[in-house]
Amino acid sequence: MKEFMDDNFLLENKTAIDLYHNYAKNMPIFDFHNHLSVKEIYEDINLPGITYAWLGFDHYKWRLMRANGVDESYITGNKDDYSKFEKWASTVPYTFNNPIYHWTHLELSRYFGINETLSLKNSKEIYDICNQKLSQKDFSIRKLIEKMNIYALCTTDDPIDDLKYHKGLKEDGYKVKVLPTFRPDKAISIHKDTFINYVNELSKVVGYQIESYQQLEEALIDRIMYFHEVGARFADHGLDEIFYLESSIEEVNEIFKKAMNNQSLTIDEIRKYQGRLQNTLAKKYHELNWTLQIHIGALRNNSSRNFYGIGPDSGYDSINDGFVAKELSKLLDSLDVSNQLPKTIIYCLNAKDNEVIASMINNFQDGKIIGKIQFGPAWWFNDTKHGMIEHFNVLSSMGLISRFVGMLTDSRSFLSFTRHEYFRRIICNEIGKVVEKGEYPNDMEFLGSMVQDICFNNIKKYTNI
Amino acid sequence: MKEFMDDNFLLENKTAIDLYHNYAKNMPIFDFHNHLSVKEIYEDINLPGITYAWLGFDHYKWRLMRANGVDESYITGNKDDYSKFEKWASTVPYTFNNPIYHWTHLELSRYFGINETLSLKNSKEIYDICNQKLSQKDFSIRKLIEKMNIYALCTTDDPIDDLKYHKGLKEDGYKVKVLPTFRPDKAISIHKDTFINYVNELSKVVGYQIESYQQLEEALIDRIMYFHEVGARFADHGLDEIFYLESSIEEVNEIFKKAMNNQSLTIDEIRKYQGRLQNTLAKKYHELNWTLQIHIGALRNNSSRNFYGIGPDSGYDSINDGFVAKELSKLLDSLDVSNQLPKTIIYCLNAKDNEVIASMINNFQDGKIIGKIQFGPAWWFNDTKHGMIEHFNVLSSMGLISRFVGMLTDSRSFLSFTRHEYFRRIICNEIGKVVEKGEYPNDMEFLGSMVQDICFNNIKKYTNI
Amino acid sequence: MKEFMDDNFLLENKTAIDLYHNYAKNMPIFDFHNHLSVKEIYEDINLPGITYAWLGFDHYKWRLMRANGVDESYITGNKDDYSKFEKWASTVPYTFNNPIYHWTHLELSRYFGINETLSLKNSKEIYDICNQKLSQKDFSIRKLIEKMNIYALCTTDDPIDDLKYHKGLKEDGYKVKVLPTFRPDKAISIHKDTFINYVNELSKVVGYQIESYQQLEEALIDRIMYFHEVGARFADHGLDEIFYLESSIEEVNEIFKKAMNNQSLTIDEIRKYQGRLQNTLAKKYHELNWTLQIHIGALRNNSSRNFYGIGPDSGYDSINDGFVAKELSKLLDSLDVSNQLPKTIIYCLNAKDNEVIASMINNFQDGKIIGKIQFGPAWWFNDTKHGMIEHFNVLSSMGLISRFVGMLTDSRSFLSFTRHEYFRRIICNEIGKVVEKGEYPNDMEFLGSMVQDICFNNIKKYTNI
Repeated sequence: MKEFMDDNFLLENKTAIDLYHNYAKNMPIFDFHNHLSVKEIYEDINLPGITYAWLGFDHYKWRLMRANGVDESYITGNKDDYSKFEKWASTVPYTFNNPIYHWTHLELSRYFGINETLSLKNSKEIYDICNQKLSQKDFSIRKLIEKMNIYALCTTDDPIDDLKYHKGLKEDGYKVKVLPTFRPDKAISIHKDTFINYVNELSKVVGYQIESYQQLEEALIDRIMYFHEVGARFADHGLDEIFYLESSIEEVNEIFKKAMNNQSLTIDEIRKYQGRLQNTLAKKYHELNWTLQIHIGALRNNSSRNFYGIGPDSGYDSINDGFVAKELSKLLDSLDVSNQLPKTIIYCLNAKDNEVIASMINNFQDGKIIGKIQFGPAWWFNDTKHGMIEHFNVLSSMGLISRFVGMLTDSRSFLSFTRHEYFRRIICNEIGKVVEKGEYPNDMEFLGSMVQDICFNNIKKYTNI
Repeated sequence: MKEFMDDNFLLENKTAIDLYHNYAKNMPIFDFHNHLSVKEIYEDINLPGITYAWLGFDHYKWRLMRANGVDESYITGNKDDYSKFEKWASTVPYTFNNPIYHWTHLELSRYFGINETLSLKNSKEIYDICNQKLSQKDFSIRKLIEKMNIYALCTTDDPIDDLKYHKGLKEDGYKVKVLPTFRPDKAISIHKDTFINYVNELSKVVGYQIESYQQLEEALIDRIMYFHEVGARFADHGLDEIFYLESSIEEVNEIFKKAMNNQSLTIDEIRKYQGRLQNTLAKKYHELNWTLQIHIGALRNNSSRNFYGIGPDSGYDSINDGFVAKELSKLLDSLDVSNQLPKTIIYCLNAKDNEVIASMINNFQDGKIIGKIQFGPAWWFNDTKHGMIEHFNVLSSMGLISRFVGMLTDSRSFLSFTRHEYFRRIICNEIGKVVEKGEYPNDMEFLGSMVQDICFNNIKKYTNI
Repeated sequence: MKEFMDDNFLLENKTAIDLYHNYAKNMPIFDFHNHLSVKEIYEDINLPGITYAWLGFDHYKWRLMRANGVDESYITGNKDDYSKFEKWASTVPYTFNNPIYHWTHLELSRYFGINETLSLKNSKEIYDICNQKLSQKDFSIRKLIEKMNIYALCTTDDPIDDLKYHKGLKEDGYKVKVLPTFRPDKAISIHKDTFINYVNELSKVVGYQIESYQQLEEALIDRIMYFHEVGARFADHGLDEIFYLESSIEEVNEIFKKAMNNQSLTIDEIRKYQGRLQNTLAKKYHELNWTLQIHIGALRNNSSRNFYGIGPDSGYDSINDGFVAKELSKLLDSLDVSNQLPKTIIYCLNAKDNEVIASMINNFQDGKIIGKIQFGPAWWFNDTKHGMIEHFNVLSSMGLISRFVGMLTDSRSFLSFTRHEYFRRIICNEIGKVVEKGEYPNDMEFLGSMVQDICFNNIKKYTNI
């Protein structure tokens, strides 16, 4: 029996141990998709406490607390910080085999040097230690980032964002690259209540009133250029469902007008609008040598009671099960046909789509950029040991795991960089298992370099950042 | 090499062995969903023989016999009992890695003390021993139940059932709780041939002619109250496909009238009717603190030749592959929005939906009832070692396996309670593997209690039965 | 640590080792579905070199080369043979955990006696050895076939094919059975551009102008009879999507006329036409005691740029995700209802459908032919260790793995018969694991014979070839 979370946590064989400790562990981190606050980095604040850091916005934890019978007042409600923390501490032992159990203890260990397991018994003691440490100078946001050997961070930003903190960090010469990502979901989501307001907001930012579809395209391209100047090299489209249908520019203009007049749209009108806008934006990304990320398959705000009561991103999202293959293929083909398909990373939320995505990417590899089209790492609900192993199996069986661009946190928390360690241990273990079984030669030079590629070199070369 | 089905059958590590033998094995059984005959329990009959017990209605076995080239006359036909048994005995060795191989030998061992493996060679001998034992007094139905340490049984019953045997057992003061479950599928299935007759049958039972949709609702609520008095605390909706679309009461009244006039309905009409009726019923369950079970994904009666020749539930059903996420979400949300969502257990038949369900349940946990919305155990075609491990992985990775209400037989056979043993061994083994790998501390006090919770305590607390 | 690809490659336990070496290894090969050139067999040519053999048409390799950043000129372009081979050799080490890594080295070892791993370092040396050997007399096509202990081969042929090489081989008395398979996809694909031309081609072959749907049926049945005389016992329908809707003969006649007049068809018209035609053809297969193969789930020619530039079957196909269950059920039922369902083998490309297929087959077992309806082996993108294990788990959990008809190459390459060895090792290992865990008795007589059945005896008995 192995001790819980010892040095060789998740490493079950000698090859894995060698790969992790001698190759993976010390590679820098390129966290190319997250939801961190640049303002907090710029201001280099200290997190106001472990309750804020862990429970202030982590809907993964909120969901498990609710499932564990914890009243909402201890979650998003107005109970005091320690009471909330205590409820979380009581929940932790019940998260058996959930990645949150591992994340929690990796964070306690790697950031705070605490190697006990958290439960109601030591809740107060651990709360105090964490809070004491978080208030120290060497626990400021930038110190947390530096402690984790971060090379680059890509945040997620709206086209209308002024990116002043990104610019500030650049001007300061901050050694960690903190780059914005262009996420135009609100402009793509023509079917949502928020659309008209959003177009008006965007109009203000670009300085002219957007009155036609073409003007919307122009405005977004203006913003892409602005993001590019500030350092952006990624875009991100959160396509809960893949919508793509061919259209003429006239049709899309009419659809835009209808939407701006608050008329409801048919599903095919939505598909035409979204298809064309994404096509236009992606061509611009291609021109600028950006990478497009596509996130497919979330079903959001399932509890309307809590959506109106608490708001979005509060733990009421889950996995959708629509069709993916045909429209995704059409979208990619609409770009590839004129050689304007950008580098693209595709994430799916429903594990049933793993095989569709893993086989889809190799339809559009162009032989010019290594691993140009990527099957992104196991995302959100799949960001688990089980999900990562599935991703490893499917991607390696159908394509080249050696060219995989690797892990990201997708997190709003400055304490979550240990998820890279979690991923690295798991991938080293899977690789080690293959080798130990005699299914690949024990060539540590190649294997070590492959592991380092997956941890860091691939994404660096891929983005040239 | 381990001996076949020894004491540590399915237990591959020391923690698993400890958990099973010292914590799981002796827990009582709460079989909260099955298809047992209450009449047979009430009358405390002796089963008329092993052919009746094993082959009289077990379509799992029938399907494998057909696949093995056994003529229908030996399955549902008129061959004599021993000839049928012999054909089954000849098929058994060919069921390699199928749960039926294990169920068969667990049943031979635990009920009959036979530890040989069944095949053509010993078919007659085993047939005779089983039949001899089944005719003994201490093999009556109630003795079989008591031998297996059953705490409670929930049968599956139609709203029009008079429940006289349930009442009889209660009056007798039978120590095992035998409770009915309210399964209104025929009232929900407005699109089926059986609908008009069913409404007429229901009219007779409630004592007034049901002439409107509202009257149907009233009649069903009358029956819910009747079931409640007799002890029911569960309802069960067999939703082969999830149908939910919002509607007005006027619309649904019109739809009901069309159906009663034998006019065909559109798919949206079906969705509206089913959505509203389920919403109404579920609110009543909530009021009475019942638990709603939802079974999703069967594709029934695929062979029309055999449906007309042999009838339903004869081994011609399989797995459907429709969409699940959106309409299930809408159905649950329609109840949650007014705080009237009952405790709900969701079962899916298509393993591709595991992740959808496991993530869906945590959208609707209310923080008041622990594990209020449950991902039910691996069902029917998934009720296999492989299926249970998948269920364990998905549920524990996305939610709280510690709060899982555990196993049920879903069976028509009084010899199938050993499926609880099968489940317990598998879950102990999976838990043990996690611990032995150092992925959870070796805290036997917590782990043992978690195992006992999953085996029995969780469902007892959840139902308060 | 095991050595790479040693004698016990993929065999992790003693039972597996015993089963493979003493039961599986020496069984003949019945490769009942492939895309080999009969002309090349008839002419008994020598392959013009390893670049032709490996890279001349193997789109599996092409896809991985593109993903590895290899320019198209080295793939389907005009670079010289060695340059192409070298690019492949450089890619090989990067195919970690991909079956192509194993296939490549099994082929080098079993055909060429080369036990080194291929990479850029030894590329030239291995290229030369392979080419030298391929030019020798004992490396002619027939010698390659005989070396691999082939009992029978079923190629894939169009109804208009004259089958002259099949006839030639028969007349020659070639000891390996080389049989055609009737694949009427072009006649079924009424919605494709190729349809009118195809009907005209078929008209020429049958010697009368096909002017009605009935005549098309007659023509195809003529061709079935012709194929039957030449030895065909298999048909194969490549149903990218399952299309089945009931129809009248009049409707289908109208649909046929529309198509022949170049009018576009509705989706329901396509479903009606395809449903009826497949029903008619399958009844003929049943009459002749043929086996129908159904291949479901490919999404083809995703990159239109490369479809027009390079052509079909060039590595731009992937996995579709449409519904499968209902229409497949209807198609099978339409035949079963009149007792005219032929033996059928169903392959799915999307692993999410494994459970649907594995449960579907047992709806239509008739108890007369052992394993009459089969879940075909893991196909194309699933033809991996991971995919085969999934297939094993799902089929054995839901049905009878013991009655499985086993492996085929589905390949255009005369060097790919080692895929049978790959499959046999994996299946022996999975069976061995079950036994070593004590989940099936260690009855080597039964297990050995089950393995030999899966490797060869089942398919031989099933087809009576």
